[in-house]
Amino acid sequence: MKISVLTLFPDMFGALSYSMIGRAQASGIVAIDAVDIRAYTADKHGKCDDIPYGGGAGMVMTPQPIVDCVRAVDPDKRARRIFMSPRGRRLTTGVAQELAREKELLFLCGHYEGVDERALEICGFEELSVGDYVLTGGELAAMVTIDALLRFVPGVLGCEESAMTESFSDGMLEYPQYTRPAIFEGLAVPEVLLSGHHANIEKWRRAKSEEITRAARPDLLKDDN
Amino acid sequence: MKISVLTLFPDMFGALSYSMIGRAQASGIVAIDAVDIRAYTADKHGKCDDIPYGGGAGMVMTPQPIVDCVRAVDPDKRARRIFMSPRGRRLTTGVAQELAREKELLFLCGHYEGVDERALEICGFEELSVGDYVLTGGELAAMVTIDALLRFVPGVLGCEESAMTESFSDGMLEYPQYTRPAIFEGLAVPEVLLSGHHANIEKWRRAKSEEITRAARPDLLKDDN
Repeated sequence: MKISVLTLFPDMFGALSYSMIGRAQASGIVAIDAVDIRAYTADKHGKCDDIPYGGGAGMVMTPQPIVDCVRAVDPDKRARRIFMSPRGRRLTTGVAQELAREKELLFLCGHYEGVDERALEICGFEELSVGDYVLTGGELAAMVTIDALLRFVPGVLGCEESAMTESFSDGMLEYPQYTRPAIFEGLAVPEVLLSGHHANIEKWRRAKSEEITRAARPDLLKDDN
Repeated sequence: MKISVLTLFPDMFGALSYSMIGRAQASGIVAIDAVDIRAYTADKHGKCDDIPYGGGAGMVMTPQPIVDCVRAVDPDKRARRIFMSPRGRRLTTGVAQELAREKELLFLCGHYEGVDERALEICGFEELSVGDYVLTGGELAAMVTIDALLRFVPGVLGCEESAMTESFSDGMLEYPQYTRPAIFEGLAVPEVLLSGHHANIEKWRRAKSEEITRAARPDLLKDDN
């Protein structure tokens, strides 16, 4: 999979070079290229933003550097083009699985007050949101999306099972996890988990998942009905 | 504001040293300290995870290093303690504003298959989720939360108005933004924005916000009724 990220802060994407996502890049399963939009500005002072028409606080990213950068990075329009924005479709596990099937993705990270609307229109960006909150830029949102989707690309996780048994994959939140020692500061691991009785363990985990989902996110259970 | 983040990958938090969040740290408005949980393990090989009781894929973070790290970082229990987890309360602009009023925050980032439940119980962590998807670790989720909340800490944004006029702050998504040039590749900025007529600009922006919200997120409008 090839992922290009267009940003004013390419160095932030060093955060994707650790742990499983770092290994996925090292092993060649995915190539993540953070491209500096500023390298494409026609402005001789390197400017990529300007004041908004109609007034208001903050600066808006100008269309020219973005459009030229997109054309340079994806000249044959092979990539699915995604602009991170709170206006967008909401990222879910289902959307992550959908994106994991693409061969090429191109993310645009806005910054400051936003991006000139014409850049989005000309390049044909779809919009994607990681949640109902606003960030100082789209970079963290793009990293979250990349992390969430790469988990569904074969070979990225050590064990394929992990992506399937955790929160949301079966419509419920995950059961509690315990590891050694069996007793820690007086607190014991639930006995059933030490029993070796797989059917009982499965039953306990299912019941705990339901209990946690009912308490924290009853809306997820409603969807099942 | 003081923010401690307990993680197995402290270097990832370099991503918070850019742009507005970087400046907020440089100016002393916020101190963000990424603490390596591994430095607190009693295991002589530096191990911080083990296989889950009851079986299953992946590894679980052991309770001892986490509990000792929390006690070292926050001995007087001054910090609000937050564990990033898809099971948690969902981050919204409202939650970000609430967290922005705290003096001390402590984030725990899980990794691998999860964290031994007893560590969460002993330390009294509340759980917070950035969205309905699973990440390879809590690090990006913690960074998203920190970015979203710091925008509401006075002095972090260049202009206080920005945090108030954008998506969600008034219950709607933001209107489109435009900047120079007035015509770009044949596409003109909407005339009203060039008119200088503030009441008409306000009216146009409000109408666009409503139109975008109705198309993308009708659920936000329903909440208003």
